[in-house]
Amino acid sequence: MFTLYDYLPSGNGYKVRLTAKRLGIAYRLVQMDVTHGATRNADFLAKNPNGRIPVLDIPGRGFLAESHAIIGYLAHGSDLLPEDPWQLALLWQWLCFEQYNLEPNIGTARFWLTSLHKSAAELGERLTEKLAKGHEALAVLELGLEARHFLVADRFSLADIALYAYTHVAPQGGFALDAYPNIRAWLERVAREPKHAPITEP
Amino acid sequence: MFTLYDYLPSGNGYKVRLTAKRLGIAYRLVQMDVTHGATRNADFLAKNPNGRIPVLDIPGRGFLAESHAIIGYLAHGSDLLPEDPWQLALLWQWLCFEQYNLEPNIGTARFWLTSLHKSAAELGERLTEKLAKGHEALAVLELGLEARHFLVADRFSLADIALYAYTHVAPQGGFALDAYPNIRAWLERVAREPKHAPITEP
Repeated sequence: MFTLYDYLPSGNGYKVRLTAKRLGIAYRLVQMDVTHGATRNADFLAKNPNGRIPVLDIPGRGFLAESHAIIGYLAHGSDLLPEDPWQLALLWQWLCFEQYNLEPNIGTARFWLTSLHKSAAELGERLTEKLAKGHEALAVLELGLEARHFLVADRFSLADIALYAYTHVAPQGGFALDAYPNIRAWLERVAREPKHAPITEP
Repeated sequence: MFTLYDYLPSGNGYKVRLTAKRLGIAYRLVQMDVTHGATRNADFLAKNPNGRIPVLDIPGRGFLAESHAIIGYLAHGSDLLPEDPWQLALLWQWLCFEQYNLEPNIGTARFWLTSLHKSAAELGERLTEKLAKGHEALAVLELGLEARHFLVADRFSLADIALYAYTHVAPQGGFALDAYPNIRAWLERVAREPKHAPITEP
């Protein structure tokens, strides 16, 4: 059985949990308290030298890090990954965008506020910058969802799982979603998908 | 024929150029001066709402953004992408690591210094932080190359192209590579690959 090293509030970990649940893949969860350095000791660094969750321990293979590499591995050959090279490229375009523009701003602001319990006053300019860049990312996502039910090939895929993870908790990072009707409708659509589970579920 | 919207000093653009050259794929290059907002006008935003190069115009398909989505598309079915799901997952693990930990630190520091012509004094703490995090990324890459000729499956792949792009110009961002013997030997190995070209070549 797979072992997933994870931190429940993590959107990156949630992507892996949602994908596994959707595909009916069982896993054992090992919770790591990233707010107290649980992923920076020698034992964990031997699993992922980059010192981050999620990490999936794959029997007979080894340890795999990076949420998108993990969900790509789990979904290989499933209907969550398009076979058509162009649709697959569009899917990776959204996944790369998420890790470069959305997660580092929305995910980080949320982590500072809700996991590290810092105040907006304390964070000051650093939070202001995250908010501005996070809203830029949300505007790109809003446009990408124009006249579309799902992000790629008009059906539910890894792109929806990956982008949903941090977007649905963006308000916890201080991002109001009122100005993004396409995003709000899509969040509801994703949450109605079979085998959906909340981010707090192991 | 493909049209590539690019900025020659860009490591992200270089990944696409190296991949296309290696695979013998012809493209027309349209150079965009990103230092003067060339990718933030309405005309370019219609191609990529995220306002960034590289963008590949694929006849009969459309515009594709995100360097790793583009090289994945170009290399589909070639020997630059492993067929084995585990090796493919390891390749994406390196690509995701590059966009999250390496490029935002090494690439950004280099961009500030060499494209925006800012001084280290002017950048202050922001540069100090990029240098620290960039060296953390280099340490992970150094470990990943221990006893390996190439990053994945012991043969040249997209992972080597993607990680080479910004690592080989890291010194331009203020990153000395003396402490990384595995990286230095690997950079030389990659540069000796067939159809290699410098970052300055269109």
